[in-house]
Amino acid sequence: MKIKTASFHTVTIIGGGLIGSSIARAIRKYGLSEKIFIYDKSDEIRKKIESLNICNKVFSNPLESVYESDLIFLCVPVGSMKEAIASISTGLKKGAIISDTGSTKKSVINDVTPFIPKNVSFIPSHPLAGTEFSGPEYGNAELFKGKYWIIINNKNNSEKQVKKLAGLYSKFGSIIEFLDVDYHDKITAITSHLPHLIAYTIVGTVTDLEEQTKKDIIRFSASGFRDFTRIAASDPIMWRDVFINNKDAVLEMLQRFSEDLSYLQRAIRWSESEKLEKLFTKTRDIRKNIIKEGQDR
Amino acid sequence: MKIKTASFHTVTIIGGGLIGSSIARAIRKYGLSEKIFIYDKSDEIRKKIESLNICNKVFSNPLESVYESDLIFLCVPVGSMKEAIASISTGLKKGAIISDTGSTKKSVINDVTPFIPKNVSFIPSHPLAGTEFSGPEYGNAELFKGKYWIIINNKNNSEKQVKKLAGLYSKFGSIIEFLDVDYHDKITAITSHLPHLIAYTIVGTVTDLEEQTKKDIIRFSASGFRDFTRIAASDPIMWRDVFINNKDAVLEMLQRFSEDLSYLQRAIRWSESEKLEKLFTKTRDIRKNIIKEGQDR
Repeated sequence: MKIKTASFHTVTIIGGGLIGSSIARAIRKYGLSEKIFIYDKSDEIRKKIESLNICNKVFSNPLESVYESDLIFLCVPVGSMKEAIASISTGLKKGAIISDTGSTKKSVINDVTPFIPKNVSFIPSHPLAGTEFSGPEYGNAELFKGKYWIIINNKNNSEKQVKKLAGLYSKFGSIIEFLDVDYHDKITAITSHLPHLIAYTIVGTVTDLEEQTKKDIIRFSASGFRDFTRIAASDPIMWRDVFINNKDAVLEMLQRFSEDLSYLQRAIRWSESEKLEKLFTKTRDIRKNIIKEGQDR
Repeated sequence: MKIKTASFHTVTIIGGGLIGSSIARAIRKYGLSEKIFIYDKSDEIRKKIESLNICNKVFSNPLESVYESDLIFLCVPVGSMKEAIASISTGLKKGAIISDTGSTKKSVINDVTPFIPKNVSFIPSHPLAGTEFSGPEYGNAELFKGKYWIIINNKNNSEKQVKKLAGLYSKFGSIIEFLDVDYHDKITAITSHLPHLIAYTIVGTVTDLEEQTKKDIIRFSASGFRDFTRIAASDPIMWRDVFINNKDAVLEMLQRFSEDLSYLQRAIRWSESEKLEKLFTKTRDIRKNIIKEGQDR
C-alpha cells in the first residue's frame, strides 16, 4: 500500500454492500488511506467482508468504527441514512468529512444534516455507477472508473475539504460534477429512477400472467424485455427507498411519461402512423447524442 | 460455396435491410443455396448491397427476382408485406416456399395469404433476433445463431416443405419453435412490442424537456435510461408498423401495464414501502429464470 501518497489516515465505510465495498477496494487499490474500516449491521455481510479481505477492520458497532476516521462514507439505502448518521454522530472526530452515496440528495441532506457536529463537514455525493447485483462480493475497485460522481453544491462547506474529497474520486477514475440538489434529484428521476420504476412495472405485469405464458415469455424474452428484467433485478430495498425519498421529482416525471404514453396509445388505437413515426425518429437523435458523449457503456 | 449441400437452388430476399442481408450472408456462409437474389425498392440500399457483395444479383424489379426461386423471404416492415407479395405473386414458381420475418404474424398472414398461388406454400416465421441498427451494412451471418426462430403452425402447409425451411434455420444456428399465430402475437406484444413502446415513450418524454436539462440527461444517462435509448433507436418504420399491426395484443398489454403503473404511483405517493418492496422482490425471480434459460445475451 502506497502509504506516503495516502490522502486520508482512516476511512470508515458505513454499509458494506456493492457500493461501500467498491469504495473500500478502490481506496486500497490506489493506496489512498492508511486504514479502511467497514461497519455493517448485518452479521452475514460482515462475515462476507471479513472473508473478502478488503479492509483493515470490520466493526459491529458503528460508533467505534468512526473514532479515528477523517473520512466517513454513508453507503446505506437512502431510507436508512438518518439511522446511520444518528448511530455515529457523537463519535465523529473534529475536522472529519462525511459523505454519502445515496441516489436521492434532498432527502439525505434533510435526514443527515441535523446530526452533523460543528467541526465536521457533510459533503453529499452520488456516484452514477452500479450493477444489478447487490452485496459486497460484487464490489469492484474499477466500478467508478470513467463514471460521473456528482457532488452537491453547498456554500457552507470549505473549499479545501471539498477539493480533498473530489481528489479521492478523481483517483478512483471518476469524472467530478457539481450540481444543485434539486437539479440532481430531477435529472436522476428521469435518467435512473423512472426507468427503474417502469422496468419494475413491466416485469411485474408479466409475473401476474398465467404460468405457461410466463414461461414462454421467459424463454422468448428478446432484447427489450430482457433489458428490463436486468434493471428490475436491482436491490429492492435500495429502490423502495429511492422512490419514496425522491417522490416529488419521480411523480412529476411519471405524470409526463403517462401523458406521453396515453398519446401513443391513442395513436396506435386510431392507426395514426405519422405520429408514431415522427416520435420514433426523434428518439433516435437522443441515442446518437449519448453515443457521441461516450456514455454508451 | 458448398453447392453440393445446398438445400435450395435459388433464394430471393425481398427487402435487403438488416434481417434480409443477414439471411443472405448466412445462406452464403453456410452454402445453403446456389444463388441468392436480393430485391430492394430503394436505390440507396440496392447500391449498398451491390458494394457489400453478399448475393449473386441485385434486382430493381421484384417480379423478375422471383422467377427461378424456390424460396422467397419477405423481409420488409409488416406494413409493406401486402405490397411486397402483390408485386411478386404472378411470378412465383410452382412448388416455391414463401416465408417472412415480420414481428407481427396475424396481420402478415391476413395481408399475404390472398396473394399466394395454389402450388406455392406460405410458411410465416419470425426470427427473435435483431439490433438497434438498421440497413444492410449491419447485417451479420451469425445474427440468428442461438436465437429462437418461430414458425407459425398452419395445417395447410405440407410437412415436407416446413421441414425443409426449418432445416435452413437450423443451419443458421437458430432454435426452431412452432407457435399458434395468436399466441405468438401475445407473447411478442409483451417481450418485445410493449418494451419498445415504453422505451420510445420515456425517451420521447425527455426530448420535450428544456435544452439544458436534456443535455445533462444525456451526459448523466446512467444504466436505465441509457438502455432505453438503445431500444428507442430501433428502426422507426418497422416499429410504427408493428404497433399498428399488433394493435389488439399491444393495447391489451398496455392496459395491464398502465394499471400496474398506477398502483405503484399511488404506493409512492402514499409512501407504502411494503407494496414497493414486495413487487421489487418478485421481479428479481423473473430475471433469475431468464439467466437460467440462458437468454441473457
